[in-house]
Amino acid sequence: MRAWESNIRKVVPYVPGEQPKGDRLIKLNTNENPYPPAPGVAEALKHMDIDRFRKYPDPTASDLVHALAEYYGVGDDQVFVGVGSDDVIAMSFLTFFNSEKPVLFPDVSYSFYKVWADLFAIPYETPALDANFCIHPEDYYRENGGVIFPNPNAPTGLLLSLEAVEDMIRHNQDVVVIVDEAYIDFGGKSALELIKKYENLLVVQTFSKSRSMAGMRIGFAIGHPDLIKALNDVKYSYNSYTMNMPSLILGTETVKDDVYFKETVQKIIDTREWSKTRLTELGFTFPDSMSNFIFASHNRVSAKELFEALKKQQIYVRYFDQPRLSNYLRISIGTREEMEALFAFLEKYLAQ
Amino acid sequence: MRAWESNIRKVVPYVPGEQPKGDRLIKLNTNENPYPPAPGVAEALKHMDIDRFRKYPDPTASDLVHALAEYYGVGDDQVFVGVGSDDVIAMSFLTFFNSEKPVLFPDVSYSFYKVWADLFAIPYETPALDANFCIHPEDYYRENGGVIFPNPNAPTGLLLSLEAVEDMIRHNQDVVVIVDEAYIDFGGKSALELIKKYENLLVVQTFSKSRSMAGMRIGFAIGHPDLIKALNDVKYSYNSYTMNMPSLILGTETVKDDVYFKETVQKIIDTREWSKTRLTELGFTFPDSMSNFIFASHNRVSAKELFEALKKQQIYVRYFDQPRLSNYLRISIGTREEMEALFAFLEKYLAQ
Repeated sequence: MRAWESNIRKVVPYVPGEQPKGDRLIKLNTNENPYPPAPGVAEALKHMDIDRFRKYPDPTASDLVHALAEYYGVGDDQVFVGVGSDDVIAMSFLTFFNSEKPVLFPDVSYSFYKVWADLFAIPYETPALDANFCIHPEDYYRENGGVIFPNPNAPTGLLLSLEAVEDMIRHNQDVVVIVDEAYIDFGGKSALELIKKYENLLVVQTFSKSRSMAGMRIGFAIGHPDLIKALNDVKYSYNSYTMNMPSLILGTETVKDDVYFKETVQKIIDTREWSKTRLTELGFTFPDSMSNFIFASHNRVSAKELFEALKKQQIYVRYFDQPRLSNYLRISIGTREEMEALFAFLEKYLAQ
Repeated sequence: MRAWESNIRKVVPYVPGEQPKGDRLIKLNTNENPYPPAPGVAEALKHMDIDRFRKYPDPTASDLVHALAEYYGVGDDQVFVGVGSDDVIAMSFLTFFNSEKPVLFPDVSYSFYKVWADLFAIPYETPALDANFCIHPEDYYRENGGVIFPNPNAPTGLLLSLEAVEDMIRHNQDVVVIVDEAYIDFGGKSALELIKKYENLLVVQTFSKSRSMAGMRIGFAIGHPDLIKALNDVKYSYNSYTMNMPSLILGTETVKDDVYFKETVQKIIDTREWSKTRLTELGFTFPDSMSNFIFASHNRVSAKELFEALKKQQIYVRYFDQPRLSNYLRISIGTREEMEALFAFLEKYLAQ
């Protein structure tokens, strides 16, 4: 080993999910929205003034922050924005989880929590989901350095009731509790209404799923002004200008078109519910997802086999080669047409 | 103090520079490029397909990485891109500076180095520039956990010769040496040609200055494939998708138009040299800048007074209220017309 290598941070490199290229493939593997961004976004893009790009963007992201604050009925000083919810949560780990005690999150959950904890050398423990993939709030009643969980959970899609979420917060008022609501718009009840009551609650959401903007990288956190200030202090100590001009301009535009937002979300919910029926008919079982994906297992054919067979047809779903998850496929909800193509193939394949 | 506050990371909040709004002001305070991005960028913006924004961007940023690799004559595996050079350098601190020994950088230098070291709890020492603001390579001959310096230095604009840079690298082959070349295109000789010779050398550049793209947030690092792999491992453990689609598409386009790039850089250099003459005539002295700004002190009137007087005229320059720097103005090089307006006002003001 060369001497300078000894000072390099050791991390287990996270391998990002497959991003296959091509126009004819059906991509149901990364929980993207099947519908394009709101019409106003295309309009704003058309009028974007390239000459402004030579200048730095607004470091406070004030327009986007204000649009979100207004939409969710909170103060501008209660909103933090970042480069996707990954950036927001990574910065939250760095900002809020500085205890010697372990941070708690479910053993089956968003896989990045472990990666961030490792990156920043944060101790953690992972209470196990039960046999039905459910989170039990009482597993989080013990001493810890912080709590984070997705609601609905990934990759199961299972939703905790707002009462259960509040129960977890109530038992953890000495630490920061982060509720990662990447998928909340697809049928869940947000914990946002609890932020008035709990100063230690941070709710994180993203533009990548319900708002059709994965390609723009926008995430946000809402919480008590003191939490947001602490996040901003760290953000300004890392990179003052994380959000580029297009994301500020187009992100703001996205928030404004609430009609389009609600229509497309409803279409996805409808397709999901119909997909559940079709999956059941085809012999699949699955936790009752309230997100934009379904985590499904077939009663006869292995998930791995189905994953490979689908891939050959240019239909991409997500497969997790790990304990407890290896006989499931995580299938993102596409358009009705995409799902029909998926089920048509599965019907044929499973009849063999 | 509420209990959860005890786990919050303590940082001295960095306050980003003033970003005044308005069309009639002359903004010479953040070293932005006075010329718009290359014509091809406007063209690419016009043809950008908003429907693609619903998908995640390419996590490997392969098109942009390849364009840079080709431009600088290195392998694709030698290029790392990030959200501005701030993101690239912050990630480099996290990746490479994990020693108990202090990292070394000049006492008068890019102010963020201290902020990053504090954020990640990295020990550091700051060898002093001499009375003429010069870096002395032999100050960096001692044991350390890494070395970073800007070349040209900020906010002085002073350039180290490539021989001096190599001398500093040669004496520090046991640690990673980062040369921060944000301003190198304005007349300096890049250390890029040394990366074949020194595996521990990382050269960082940005699109924010010479490439007119501050608003897009693009920075990059070039070095040995092992350094780039280590950076990518950390990046993928932080946020797989740091670069959004517009920055990938428009960034790639920027690199392609070399004629425009060289023309605008030359215009800035010409305006800078002419500005030096005018400043001298007006009674200013300054280090001989090889960047897109001049760090100037007047022989009679204090920098603070001039800063305030200029601000009243909507002419913004940068003032640093700190030891050794407090009688200097850092003046970014604008268009010839902007500089003429600046000098016209100064001439009148100083004649009073």
